[in-house]
Amino acid sequence: MEKSNGLLIVLSGPSGAGKGTICHELLRQLPDVKYSVSATTRNPRPSEVDGVDYFFRTREEFQSMIQNDELLEWAEFCENYYGTPQFAVEQSLQAGIDVILEIEIQGALQIKKRFPHGVFVFVVPPSLSVLSERIHKRGTESEDVIRKRLETATRELSYVTEYDYVIVNDELDKAVDKLKNILVAEKCRVKRKPYDFQGV
Amino acid sequence: MEKSNGLLIVLSGPSGAGKGTICHELLRQLPDVKYSVSATTRNPRPSEVDGVDYFFRTREEFQSMIQNDELLEWAEFCENYYGTPQFAVEQSLQAGIDVILEIEIQGALQIKKRFPHGVFVFVVPPSLSVLSERIHKRGTESEDVIRKRLETATRELSYVTEYDYVIVNDELDKAVDKLKNILVAEKCRVKRKPYDFQGV
Repeated sequence: MEKSNGLLIVLSGPSGAGKGTICHELLRQLPDVKYSVSATTRNPRPSEVDGVDYFFRTREEFQSMIQNDELLEWAEFCENYYGTPQFAVEQSLQAGIDVILEIEIQGALQIKKRFPHGVFVFVVPPSLSVLSERIHKRGTESEDVIRKRLETATRELSYVTEYDYVIVNDELDKAVDKLKNILVAEKCRVKRKPYDFQGV
Repeated sequence: MEKSNGLLIVLSGPSGAGKGTICHELLRQLPDVKYSVSATTRNPRPSEVDGVDYFFRTREEFQSMIQNDELLEWAEFCENYYGTPQFAVEQSLQAGIDVILEIEIQGALQIKKRFPHGVFVFVVPPSLSVLSERIHKRGTESEDVIRKRLETATRELSYVTEYDYVIVNDELDKAVDKLKNILVAEKCRVKRKPYDFQGV
């Protein structure tokens, strides 16, 4: 049997659904999975580190990356750019390393066109009221931004049908377990196996 | 969100691949999953109990079940009939109970036509020499039957492409874990969710 490529796991869903927390916990539990660091023009939150959580860039720098075709996908969201540098992702997959991306829905749909064999996971909050509460608690956005996010989230829920899996994030541990189960299952999928039964 | 139907898990693969052992262990670990007892005309092995491992039937009784359309699938294999009584399976699925079937490949392909949303898992031995060893160790078949089974197994491996998942049964615990992961993952699949986001 040939060596398989790594899995590209795309974790997406409405803002505030908790995909960042799930992603972080998965990486802690499965250190062999590699996180694809995104580039963004938004301001760092207090705990965030440049080059670890995001590559924080100015609008000018980001636009230059777009023009040089250095991004796998990019999107403008709440007046900030977000994007995924292409080179690192492809190199890891070819080396058999699983890569996880945590991105907004517009970006995920762009990735799907280029990586139809990626594993597309949609994280949803248990309800819109929980979502609103979570965004408020984070306390990093103004009321106007929060209102916009909730409107966007409501609209975005309808994109679930574009995804392979949906995880309702009611309890972090359960949600992370589901994601881990999805990874194991996907590695057993026949369509991912370059079968050669001469060796069996 | 509506109540989902149970999953129909179809565990299949060449004779001697160990699907029976995997199935047995899964049922021990997940008592909520229901085993669909098959009917057969073959002789019981020493440890097997009628109505628990199989419904052991005469050829005449089996042919009457075929004529009365009481079987979801049936096949003749090594000069014996094997089949799956339909009623019990459908009733369980509709009640939201997961059902596992452990059947030969011909039977699995018949099931797939009627239950395209079933989860089709192909269990393969690590190699044909291991397969031969396992059938010999079981010691319940004649040399002639064993030779026939190995020929059939070689041919049957090519059917893997008809399945959703493949599990290489090199270690029982790992194989059972993979199957359990597949069940959790399948329950997260978007295509299985009757989504109604009014409630979200």
